[in-house]
Amino acid sequence: MFEWFKGYEENRVLKELEDLLSMDIPYSRVLSSMCTYPHPIAVKAHIKFIRSNLGDPGLFPGTAELEKRLLVMLGELFGKRDLAGYISSGGTEGNIQAIRAARNMLCTCRGNIVVPESAHFSFLKIKDLLGIDVRKAGLDEEYRVDIGDVERLVDDETFAIVGIAGTTELGQVDDIKALSKLAIENNLFLHVDAAFGGFVLPFLNNNEFNFRIKGVCSLVADPHKMGMATIPSGAVLFRDSKYLEVLSVETPYLTSSKQFTLTGTRPGTGVASAYAVLKHLGFEGMKKVVLECMRVTQILKEEVESLGLEAVIDPVMNVVCFKCNARKVREELMKRGWVVSCIRKPEAIRCVIMPHLTESAALEFVKVLKNVLHSL
Amino acid sequence: MFEWFKGYEENRVLKELEDLLSMDIPYSRVLSSMCTYPHPIAVKAHIKFIRSNLGDPGLFPGTAELEKRLLVMLGELFGKRDLAGYISSGGTEGNIQAIRAARNMLCTCRGNIVVPESAHFSFLKIKDLLGIDVRKAGLDEEYRVDIGDVERLVDDETFAIVGIAGTTELGQVDDIKALSKLAIENNLFLHVDAAFGGFVLPFLNNNEFNFRIKGVCSLVADPHKMGMATIPSGAVLFRDSKYLEVLSVETPYLTSSKQFTLTGTRPGTGVASAYAVLKHLGFEGMKKVVLECMRVTQILKEEVESLGLEAVIDPVMNVVCFKCNARKVREELMKRGWVVSCIRKPEAIRCVIMPHLTESAALEFVKVLKNVLHSL
Repeated sequence: MFEWFKGYEENRVLKELEDLLSMDIPYSRVLSSMCTYPHPIAVKAHIKFIRSNLGDPGLFPGTAELEKRLLVMLGELFGKRDLAGYISSGGTEGNIQAIRAARNMLCTCRGNIVVPESAHFSFLKIKDLLGIDVRKAGLDEEYRVDIGDVERLVDDETFAIVGIAGTTELGQVDDIKALSKLAIENNLFLHVDAAFGGFVLPFLNNNEFNFRIKGVCSLVADPHKMGMATIPSGAVLFRDSKYLEVLSVETPYLTSSKQFTLTGTRPGTGVASAYAVLKHLGFEGMKKVVLECMRVTQILKEEVESLGLEAVIDPVMNVVCFKCNARKVREELMKRGWVVSCIRKPEAIRCVIMPHLTESAALEFVKVLKNVLHSL
Repeated sequence: MFEWFKGYEENRVLKELEDLLSMDIPYSRVLSSMCTYPHPIAVKAHIKFIRSNLGDPGLFPGTAELEKRLLVMLGELFGKRDLAGYISSGGTEGNIQAIRAARNMLCTCRGNIVVPESAHFSFLKIKDLLGIDVRKAGLDEEYRVDIGDVERLVDDETFAIVGIAGTTELGQVDDIKALSKLAIENNLFLHVDAAFGGFVLPFLNNNEFNFRIKGVCSLVADPHKMGMATIPSGAVLFRDSKYLEVLSVETPYLTSSKQFTLTGTRPGTGVASAYAVLKHLGFEGMKKVVLECMRVTQILKEEVESLGLEAVIDPVMNVVCFKCNARKVREELMKRGWVVSCIRKPEAIRCVIMPHLTESAALEFVKVLKNVLHSL
């Protein structure tokens, strides 16, 4: 019989968990992640709702009502009060659902979509899942999608085009207005992946990515990234409830009769934590957090440029990449306890300045980077 | 500007959450759900890992190690020590991934699968997502899949067959041995949906559903159901790592280079809570919980039968359904604060006896049911 047959005392198990937890890297030296420590109120809200299951909303009418209230707030934030949607496991589920809804609206199992070359790798999963062709449009010199190239790739089989509001690599924002024009002219579904940018751009007074732009049919934005909610918390939002309808299946043994989510059982924690942060901080509080991230980003950019590294683009949000011998630099930084990631085109290290990265930590990072550059 | 522009004090927000939470139905009177209160140690473990993101495992090597240890325990529980797999958002993700892996192994975007008529509605989502034909095999008089019917439906285009270990409606277990024989003879992928039964059957000394059966290629089992873990926690398990390989996409900007999960960002909480429960209770402790659920199930069955209602099948696990004017009975029970669900073939009310349902609650339920039956 196996070793855990008789079980272990609670304290021994919790001690084992603590020991493993202590191996995880604290965020304070992480510049590679689009996640961060959840806000304290997010943790409090999360713990309250730890038992709730939105997969069976009739049992949890209070949690279901909370999700409705959150959707109203997100509608206000993203430019259309009466959005359809739900809180998902994150941006990948949202991207899957948006493209699936677009395909189902056209009642076809065929076709293609056009995404920017800078699209997140979740579109590779979508290609495989849905068995569709995912065409990649090139980028312009500022690493925004080349609208001419999107237009060139669209054909009779195309059912959707995608724009990114906050690319994973550079934090760049595509010209959603131009994509919208193209979508409307060609009767295409336009999906906006704002998984990262959704909780950054509105606080920088940039709304040229959301439902204020007419052609935008769906948008994903992740509270568990810059929304400082707990994981998992992603918002998948549609301009019209007809898009949810085409995702529905019948659910005979639940309190509801239909389900349009990708997953079945679904935590209420992401709803509670996202709601709590937005409601507590308000637009003004969120703006403060975002502006502070932007301030540290600017400092980091100037300091690293003074070391002789060039930023790939002037930061649009709290992401900045520096051209260098990236793999080597990354590895040396890692040895010294700092985590950045790499991008490939152009070869550069990538720094995401999340709320956990203070100004003094950023300056400490620059010192270490200086040593690394000298040592190479 | 919208109402939450300036934000609200923490206490006011938390009070609003409490008010909504109090509208949720307590599990103590719920017989319709396959979820339950998480075990106290699950909650403690969950809270410890509330910040961890297994979508980026290089940042969380401790949490990643914990997932490995959990997979070893699950391997021991399910009859093969060196399983491949991961902890997912739940059974639906697991079913999607298993069928997707089966399809990808055959390098085709076409084909069909054969599932029992009793399969969970997640297979409707899979049909839509993957654009495959999902053929439904009939059931025998005990509501197990009819093996002859499965055989009849299999053709050259079939790439997988599915067996259920613990059907959602009746808790019935298909003849996985016979399906295994069929799968091996026809060179088919066999997936077992043990989302519910996975954490019941081994503790009833029934292992004729897992990797001990040669033809079983994949299995899902949900710790967030009878494993008493927190939501979300689902295990998707493969006999061989080659099945994970065909699900992988490249992940350029993470600490890992490939990702085989369906979602991207992924909580560590489900790993921690599932591990803590299994390790703390051990096989023996889990068995106690399951046997107590079975004891209450048996009492409920006898008491309700004494009211003149017939059980659809003799309970195989902690699920029992009673033939009656189900929609009406369900509605009347709901008015009196008790929740059951309905099944359609045959028309019956369905009771799932989870660990939250005590013997005295079950007897109280029987009293209320008696009143309802008299009132009709």
